Amino acid sequence: MSEHAILEQETIVALATASGNGAIAVIRLSGKDAIEITNQVFRGKNLLKQASHTLHFGTVRDGEEIIDEVLVSLFVGPNSYTKENVVEISTHNSKYIIERVMSLLIKKGARAAKAGEFTLRAFLNGGMDLSQAEAVADLIASNSAASHQIAMQQMRGGFSNQLKKLRDDLIHFASLIELELDFSEEDVEFANRDQLKSLIKQINQVVSKLISSFEQGNVLKNGVPVVIAGKPNVGKSTLLNALLNEERAIVSDIAGTTRDTIEDEINIKGITFRFIDTAGIRETIDVIEAKGVERTREKMKQARLIIYLFDPTQDEVVDIEAQIAEVAVLNIPFVTIINKADLLTVEQKKQYEVLKPLYISAKEQIGVEELKDELLNQVNLSNLNTDDVLVTNIRHVEALQHTRTSLERVLNGIDNPVTSDFLAMDIRQSLYHLGEITGSVSTDDLLDNIFSKFCIGK
Amino acid sequence: MSEHAILEQETIVALATASGNGAIAVIRLSGKDAIEITNQVFRGKNLLKQASHTLHFGTVRDGEEIIDEVLVSLFVGPNSYTKENVVEISTHNSKYIIERVMSLLIKKGARAAKAGEFTLRAFLNGGMDLSQAEAVADLIASNSAASHQIAMQQMRGGFSNQLKKLRDDLIHFASLIELELDFSEEDVEFANRDQLKSLIKQINQVVSKLISSFEQGNVLKNGVPVVIAGKPNVGKSTLLNALLNEERAIVSDIAGTTRDTIEDEINIKGITFRFIDTAGIRETIDVIEAKGVERTREKMKQARLIIYLFDPTQDEVVDIEAQIAEVAVLNIPFVTIINKADLLTVEQKKQYEVLKPLYISAKEQIGVEELKDELLNQVNLSNLNTDDVLVTNIRHVEALQHTRTSLERVLNGIDNPVTSDFLAMDIRQSLYHLGEITGSVSTDDLLDNIFSKFCIGK
Repeated sequence: MSEHAILEQETIVALATASGNGAIAVIRLSGKDAIEITNQVFRGKNLLKQASHTLHFGTVRDGEEIIDEVLVSLFVGPNSYTKENVVEISTHNSKYIIERVMSLLIKKGARAAKAGEFTLRAFLNGGMDLSQAEAVADLIASNSAASHQIAMQQMRGGFSNQLKKLRDDLIHFASLIELELDFSEEDVEFANRDQLKSLIKQINQVVSKLISSFEQGNVLKNGVPVVIAGKPNVGKSTLLNALLNEERAIVSDIAGTTRDTIEDEINIKGITFRFIDTAGIRETIDVIEAKGVERTREKMKQARLIIYLFDPTQDEVVDIEAQIAEVAVLNIPFVTIINKADLLTVEQKKQYEVLKPLYISAKEQIGVEELKDELLNQVNLSNLNTDDVLVTNIRHVEALQHTRTSLERVLNGIDNPVTSDFLAMDIRQSLYHLGEITGSVSTDDLLDNIFSKFCIGK
Repeated sequence: MSEHAILEQETIVALATASGNGAIAVIRLSGKDAIEITNQVFRGKNLLKQASHTLHFGTVRDGEEIIDEVLVSLFVGPNSYTKENVVEISTHNSKYIIERVMSLLIKKGARAAKAGEFTLRAFLNGGMDLSQAEAVADLIASNSAASHQIAMQQMRGGFSNQLKKLRDDLIHFASLIELELDFSEEDVEFANRDQLKSLIKQINQVVSKLISSFEQGNVLKNGVPVVIAGKPNVGKSTLLNALLNEERAIVSDIAGTTRDTIEDEINIKGITFRFIDTAGIRETIDVIEAKGVERTREKMKQARLIIYLFDPTQDEVVDIEAQIAEVAVLNIPFVTIINKADLLTVEQKKQYEVLKPLYISAKEQIGVEELKDELLNQVNLSNLNTDDVLVTNIRHVEALQHTRTSLERVLNGIDNPVTSDFLAMDIRQSLYHLGEITGSVSTDDLLDNIFSKFCIGK
């Protein structure tokens, strides 16, 4: 970590707010000299003599020229996000002013921050563990109740607390076993093998549960991938619009928070359903014929859910059954929907009963609410406790999988007795992988990889 | 002002930072209940018991659900931007979080702010006069050293201070003259006519100077409109790129402040030169023929400066002189430029001497610096003192023009004596128009018109 240790000596500066139309911008500094550097360009008070967590109005000046009237927030380390001295300068949101103020601070000794460097410092200075730091980026990217909740829980340490406790217990055993190595000639056992086995089983259970939570966690974080299938003109777009329109109406309620147009993504009770770009699919799945089958199946395999839409005015029941049979082999949950149901008589409906379909009219907005309930039902989140810890990060899953492999080797080594040094090695390996998640173990490469994906200013 | 008086009772809330990619967002509240409303959703400390200008870390909660970890800035009125209680909540910059926090604050009693409503309140509560409030929007929009300096000076009151002083003196005289009305039967003169005349001449001088500063102020604020004229392939785009490229290189130095691509706008020593969209011009002005002349001239008249570019390898001197003669009648400053000068021999150059041109090679970047100096020279800003007060707002110019008309009526009334009541009326008229600028006199319509052009959150 030598590189990062050097970085820490420098004071970094970055724009912390978004660029674009807005009233104010916030420029953030962190480092030993953050307050001193700001004080050199600030007129109004001597910032070096002010208490932490206070706000100061004044001007930023380049010589005698006034660049802006600003508000300065002071955080004296370690009582700050990065645990270093932190200053936030709130300026008028003009690109010209931001450029001038940043240039000035750099001239006075600050350095432009790299992506994620503030959070990296928070991690390096013990303000948060690595999985919490990763959750900060997830939190900023969160766009649904579910992804928000997962990120918030991870940032608040729900995930790492569980692992830390188990890791500490395992460290205890590791040290006992390593002690045995010192007395290897005397053939003593400081570590009770039954207790160790029981602990490892307990850890394995937690680890396995976390691994298996990944599929669900990933879906909640990134949205449930859905394919709407069906012949042309069965009403796929109309259905999508019926689902989308409501969503948009809700979103546009609050001025100033208009979100970018989201195509083909709907949010039902906090869960995002993401409709896979079906540029190719929508045409080729119409009728699954020999030629298109392979390509269509590949696309469909990306889905976690398939909505199969039929138009009773053009699809025959036999035909529908054939299409469904093709999809069923994929082993992906699917919902059979008869659209334009308002055009059917009770008598006509009877022939479709065998398909156990949902009857809707996308155009008349009939059955849309029932469809939403069915989508939620298919994702099967009803039994998800809001306090459940979910893994959403592929890096974490991989570390957990490696942990499990090592732990199984330890169990194996206890049952088919191996010498203490082999056992110690496998335990150390488990500890290493567990530590990767929270960053108790980390490398510069890993950190660079994680934090370079952050935005600048965080 | 009844409508605005009612508004003031309410607590308003808005996102104060830009939308888009960034680390943090700031949600701003202002109003009597700003702190109380925030306190209802904030967990960490009792905000009602905290001092002004302090920062508090905690969580925003909807019931027990944690929406975000935030930093709250407290400003207890009248020590705030709006002179009311102000709270700024610094959240993670997630649209989902911003929506949730804003919704929550609105549920607890705040109202979504209208555009410019924070600054409107600052004005209504005496925090700044109207011309200062207008300068806030100009400051945010400023994109060059010149426009920034003008806005900053106006926001700091340089402009209104001058007017206020003169207006106060005039009010003094107005009251003396109105006193004469009470004693009209006695034919007394409380107001010394010579002193009044001298004051009005003094005011008139200042007002006239301000009016005449408008052209320059407007150019500095909005950029100098320039047309680059010349036949096809004389190198117009190459020249523009040569001027633009340098600029871009400078700008991209600082990470996080990348500006939007600015087409056809260059900044030379703090002055913006704005190249008029010449979609039509660039083709039609090639050779000024009968048919295109009118249209071309109309376009050129928008320019404050014309760069006439010639290619010695295709333009004959006689031809050039003819084209220049056509432009000269427009009475707009123009610079004659011989491009591709690196291809000319000393002998060849001689024949162009009569045109007193600038020799450049846009492609080889020869003479570009000299051209920049010439552009600055043409705008004639060398004699502009940085402390000069410049008027940049059309509303202000109009009010100043009305003031001048009224003042001249007053002077006329003194020289060709009219009764005190007529004199009083004209003075009152002058005071009214002077007051319009600083907002000592204002109407709801005027205020709505001004502040609706602000961004939300300011």
